[in-house]
Amino acid sequence: MEAYFDNSATTRVLDSVMDIVTRTMTVDYANPAAKHIKGMEAENYIRDARSIIAKTLKVADKEILFTSGGSESNNMALIGTAMANKRAGMHIISTNVEHASIYNTLGFLQEQGFEITYLPVDHNGHIDLDQLREAVRPDTILVSVMYVNNEVGSVEPVAEISRVIKAKNPSTIFHVDAIQAYGKYEIRPKKEGIDLLSVSGHKIHGPKGVGFLYIDEKLKIRPLIYGGGQQAGMRSGTENVPGVAGFGAAVKEMYTDHAEKIQKLIGLKDYMTDRLGEIEGTMINSKKGEASAPQIVSVSFEGVRSEVLLHALEDKGIYVSSGSACSSNHPGISGTLKGIGVAQKLLDSTIRISFSIFNTKEEVDYTI
Amino acid sequence: MEAYFDNSATTRVLDSVMDIVTRTMTVDYANPAAKHIKGMEAENYIRDARSIIAKTLKVADKEILFTSGGSESNNMALIGTAMANKRAGMHIISTNVEHASIYNTLGFLQEQGFEITYLPVDHNGHIDLDQLREAVRPDTILVSVMYVNNEVGSVEPVAEISRVIKAKNPSTIFHVDAIQAYGKYEIRPKKEGIDLLSVSGHKIHGPKGVGFLYIDEKLKIRPLIYGGGQQAGMRSGTENVPGVAGFGAAVKEMYTDHAEKIQKLIGLKDYMTDRLGEIEGTMINSKKGEASAPQIVSVSFEGVRSEVLLHALEDKGIYVSSGSACSSNHPGISGTLKGIGVAQKLLDSTIRISFSIFNTKEEVDYTI
Repeated sequence: MEAYFDNSATTRVLDSVMDIVTRTMTVDYANPAAKHIKGMEAENYIRDARSIIAKTLKVADKEILFTSGGSESNNMALIGTAMANKRAGMHIISTNVEHASIYNTLGFLQEQGFEITYLPVDHNGHIDLDQLREAVRPDTILVSVMYVNNEVGSVEPVAEISRVIKAKNPSTIFHVDAIQAYGKYEIRPKKEGIDLLSVSGHKIHGPKGVGFLYIDEKLKIRPLIYGGGQQAGMRSGTENVPGVAGFGAAVKEMYTDHAEKIQKLIGLKDYMTDRLGEIEGTMINSKKGEASAPQIVSVSFEGVRSEVLLHALEDKGIYVSSGSACSSNHPGISGTLKGIGVAQKLLDSTIRISFSIFNTKEEVDYTI
Repeated sequence: MEAYFDNSATTRVLDSVMDIVTRTMTVDYANPAAKHIKGMEAENYIRDARSIIAKTLKVADKEILFTSGGSESNNMALIGTAMANKRAGMHIISTNVEHASIYNTLGFLQEQGFEITYLPVDHNGHIDLDQLREAVRPDTILVSVMYVNNEVGSVEPVAEISRVIKAKNPSTIFHVDAIQAYGKYEIRPKKEGIDLLSVSGHKIHGPKGVGFLYIDEKLKIRPLIYGGGQQAGMRSGTENVPGVAGFGAAVKEMYTDHAEKIQKLIGLKDYMTDRLGEIEGTMINSKKGEASAPQIVSVSFEGVRSEVLLHALEDKGIYVSSGSACSSNHPGISGTLKGIGVAQKLLDSTIRISFSIFNTKEEVDYTI
């Protein structure tokens, strides 16, 4: 038996995705900027994907900007906002449990003269709203918070966070890194006060190399990549038609019978959590049910190094992650685990098990 | 009959490309950063593609940086070099017939305080080497020149250009936009004195959404996208494994029996050029044989608007380009055509016919 439990690192593409990718690579392969009919046909794939995605968020089509993936979306949200708004202020707030594509981009902005405040999280992985309120200043141009933590699955109350920010400074822009959240939650940027939202295709059975950034139409943000003026000049370069069309197909399928899909994931998570709890010396860092993301179980094994366990599992055809697995030079010891108060001796003994709709209860039993 | 003659806008992917894309999307789909064996297998696809590409240029594997396409490569070459070297000077030289992803990126750098000199071209599409020599100054940090012009196929003598630059200022960095040249020419950056070289996958039957930037290992250049530290920290974000692997497969096939493939393209180009010459009121802006790129014919039709002709041809299943087709907001009248001295009245009556190895002599006859 094989059990791929590393779905928060990346997922297998859906058959519906593979179909449209193949079609746009071999039949409808024209450049969307071409003025002939084949170009217009290619452009229609982009338009359809944009519309599918916009509908899931209840936003306007033109508020969806396609990028080359989650990292580009996060970079553009932070750098694009900071550079376009620095006359209004140079203060940015984030947390100390963000993904490297936020953390290291903020490091770059700090070198450019921006001041960054990093908020800590409690044992639930949540920032303190009073601390946030205190941190927001007249010169705070941007707050960036992760929706679902990629290591332990904790979920930030983004709507509440937005209310706190906007009450203190209505012109502060709120960015949400939803890379582990989109496809799992019904996100409503307009209702929840989210101005920018980053999403990646390959975390939800879409292709790698494609993502999007939701940008509220009222926002002023600077492009990262200049050129032919595609996507209203906000992201130049020939559109990745197969990537975008495949992404659209993935979104369509994942948001069909969505509640059932999520219940299936929660069922797997809770079952895995219960069965892991039966093993002596385990400590679960994630939460059951709706108290955390449906796809992530974080578990520490007292006295077992995570890398040793990872390879022992791999020998049995079971694939998990020992870190966030989103980084090739991960420092090894997770800031998130420390942040939520995992005991020092367990930090290096923690693995992440992450589910997709392809996983089964039998795979959990086999793994246990 | 159908004749797709818009291959300089984009190409159909090869079967060998489709195969490896399918495999890496549905079977070997792991995240290359994952520490388990499936991650290592994914990483091998990246390593193989990098090695295939490096061999075609006779450079080191580590000098190949994968990007999301030609526009990102060009942006990174210009912005990355400018930002990392601005203490050495803030002067940049380019030409007035560059692609929008060079031209508009230089516009951004100008806003950032850089001074840009744009060299004109003669009726052959070549810059004047004496003018270049004069333009290079002690504070010139970068010269960026297109290898093959995307509209008329003129070829700049890049090795000579490099010699002129380096003789005047050895520390000036030389960037070549080879997006229409790679796959058509045997390019040797080390021998030709090229420090940075931009390439796109989808112009040579690879996937859209992937490209590379050759960066001489001695160069200091700043990343555009920060994050998990993939590709030695120079371009973060989960590698687009299917895109990169597909790109590698395309390069492998295109550089197999390469001379024959190019002779086929030249044959098509010359045949089309001759046959077009038989039509009254045509004016050929490209050159025959090896005097210009093998894949591009630029032709003006006196008294016929290019857009009208484009749609008339499309009705017969023939697809050409009226502009560079790499831009969705192209100003309509080409700077390159003006630059090489095409008569004012013909500027708006010019189409580009661009070939791939899939085209045939019969398609040319049908089109004529």
